[in-house]
Amino acid sequence: MNDRENGWPCYGGDMKDLIYFDNASTTFPKPEPVYRAMEEAGRHFAVNVGRGAYRLAREAFRLTEDTREEILHLVQGNYGAETVFTPSATIACNQVLGGLEWKRADVVYVTPFEHNAVIRVLHHLQKQYGFEVEELAVHQESLEMDREKIRYQFLRKPPAALIMNHVSNVTGAILPWQDIAKLAEEYKAAVIVDGSQALGLVPVCLKHTNVDFYIFAGHKALCGPLGIGGYVNNSGRKLKQILFGGTGSDSLNPEVSPEDVRGYEPGSMNITAIAGLEAAIKESVRSAAEERLREEQRLREGLLEKLNRIPEIQLYPPLHSAAAGIVSLNVEGYQAEEVGILLDEKYGIAVRTGYHCAPLIHKYLKDKEYGGTVRVSLGPFTTEAELDVLAEALEEIAAG
Amino acid sequence: MNDRENGWPCYGGDMKDLIYFDNASTTFPKPEPVYRAMEEAGRHFAVNVGRGAYRLAREAFRLTEDTREEILHLVQGNYGAETVFTPSATIACNQVLGGLEWKRADVVYVTPFEHNAVIRVLHHLQKQYGFEVEELAVHQESLEMDREKIRYQFLRKPPAALIMNHVSNVTGAILPWQDIAKLAEEYKAAVIVDGSQALGLVPVCLKHTNVDFYIFAGHKALCGPLGIGGYVNNSGRKLKQILFGGTGSDSLNPEVSPEDVRGYEPGSMNITAIAGLEAAIKESVRSAAEERLREEQRLREGLLEKLNRIPEIQLYPPLHSAAAGIVSLNVEGYQAEEVGILLDEKYGIAVRTGYHCAPLIHKYLKDKEYGGTVRVSLGPFTTEAELDVLAEALEEIAAG
Repeated sequence: MNDRENGWPCYGGDMKDLIYFDNASTTFPKPEPVYRAMEEAGRHFAVNVGRGAYRLAREAFRLTEDTREEILHLVQGNYGAETVFTPSATIACNQVLGGLEWKRADVVYVTPFEHNAVIRVLHHLQKQYGFEVEELAVHQESLEMDREKIRYQFLRKPPAALIMNHVSNVTGAILPWQDIAKLAEEYKAAVIVDGSQALGLVPVCLKHTNVDFYIFAGHKALCGPLGIGGYVNNSGRKLKQILFGGTGSDSLNPEVSPEDVRGYEPGSMNITAIAGLEAAIKESVRSAAEERLREEQRLREGLLEKLNRIPEIQLYPPLHSAAAGIVSLNVEGYQAEEVGILLDEKYGIAVRTGYHCAPLIHKYLKDKEYGGTVRVSLGPFTTEAELDVLAEALEEIAAG
Repeated sequence: MNDRENGWPCYGGDMKDLIYFDNASTTFPKPEPVYRAMEEAGRHFAVNVGRGAYRLAREAFRLTEDTREEILHLVQGNYGAETVFTPSATIACNQVLGGLEWKRADVVYVTPFEHNAVIRVLHHLQKQYGFEVEELAVHQESLEMDREKIRYQFLRKPPAALIMNHVSNVTGAILPWQDIAKLAEEYKAAVIVDGSQALGLVPVCLKHTNVDFYIFAGHKALCGPLGIGGYVNNSGRKLKQILFGGTGSDSLNPEVSPEDVRGYEPGSMNITAIAGLEAAIKESVRSAAEERLREEQRLREGLLEKLNRIPEIQLYPPLHSAAAGIVSLNVEGYQAEEVGILLDEKYGIAVRTGYHCAPLIHKYLKDKEYGGTVRVSLGPFTTEAELDVLAEALEEIAAG
């Protein structure tokens, strides 16, 4: 396919030689049906959702409702759980954390793996409300959650809220949020799981858990497009609204009932993105997630094996525990950024370097002398051959 | 093109018989290059923007920066003006209004044409800060802004902020915001123009005005896709950040400098939507806006002429003053909603009915006995033949 000749701007350069290992930023490319569904929706019914309006608007409404159901099905939510769509997981984090009722005396626990979509929102709320933020304990070497210490932490300072990453965007670690949530159950803490890197790849079952909110990104492991994310309200816990605007109904009322899910979705719904997300779920998630995860883990193991043989390469945990297809590494003698530039310019390999918007974990990784890590993140289209090219490239770089 | 046969879900039904008059909700369909640019971006470089990252990420960054420039060019902003992208105009309204420093003693003026993206945000802020919200005076019959009375309003209660719709989404009126802004200049009021219905169609020149923020929607008059909007900061007035998250740089810092435009754009940029917006500007706006506006006005005049001949049809101002292609009407003996249903079901004509998320204007329109208005909004693809079908349909409905 030669889109370069259609006369439109030539951003993107020549893709064919690129090896893409930045799937934790956004999976790329998307499965073919995602592009087709977006095109179809864009051309045929990407109008403003309307319950009682004309036919096309009702169709857009139906797609939205169907996709809410798909998400509920994926997270296996409680009876009565609801999907709220937002333009991104970041905005979902703002709405969920900003929507809770905070008190000065509250203690909020986070894992050291949290992303700035959580940390920066919390930092702002902390300035406003004065609550305390504590990090959940991890074992120093493995970075596994330290359940015994956490039990003790909760006993000493009972949790008002607990915010846990499901999959670390830095190390790929799959966190045992179910277990930690259980430890917080007796304290009636608000429990939030940030599943941005997880949903669509790692199994989720919210039923019979005390998780209140599960946040997701459409464009990462779900393999959908940019522009759509959200959260599942699994417990019916009410949130204050923090974003306001038109909802297409009850227009004369300056407030929207907190019972109405649309009260948390002001403005026009992005039907094109929702259509892409629905197609992604049908194609790559519904029946394929399990296999995709196994394949990512197999590829990851293979890569780790190769990299372990290069003595100049420092690998970061978790090496052997449950992880999705993300590997953080450094090469002795190079800043992380330098390795990224060499991989890009000399080998056509795209990785992310730096701190990956996850500010807390680096004191455990002790990677600051490198300016963060080189992150290799796999996606649905990653091949073993690509990982071989990467391993060879890193070996050459390491050899100087 | 027969997308119905590709095996993907058949939302949207059969488009070919539809006459679409809901362009004020979202222009539909989009110009062909918008679809092509989105497809191109989605397939070739819709990755996470990065200044210093790999090639594709730099390309995505370049597209974003180029599109910021296109917007600045359209609004003819002051030297130093900046474009901030948001997922929607609604979120832009939340960020701009929520980002101002409010005091209890403040008086905030709005036009009676404001949308709930302004009114509901203000209502929330008012509950928080206790300021006063006043409506700018309009002439009762024409609904033109009453400059004399407004001058007096400002004298009596000096404005701290002034929020003005550029084009009414209910009547199509083009508001003289430049003149009203001038009246507020001596009070150093914060001046915000909501150009959601205007930018891309109605000329804007912010240079040498005292407008601080001009808000735009990508998917309305700009003819771009859903999922992208924003505002232009025309004066350098600083806003508090109200949404937080990763910005792809300075990750270890829990705060983002208010000097950094990306501090107002947390999360992944929607590159696909930005690519569509850029194509829309090139295709339908840059050199075509003036002609599109003239054509919409010509079509609107023709429609008004036909409808004026039907005695059962009530038309709402402005009938003769400056307006974009939007007409609000009612048919004697019918609720607005009933007319909408008849037009949809019997004639395949899509209009919007009700209060159109603009709560203040209806006391002037005196349309509450009809449950709001039937709104006919034209777009770049509206034809005279379609308006003839509409006029005939309305005549039949009126005749009962």
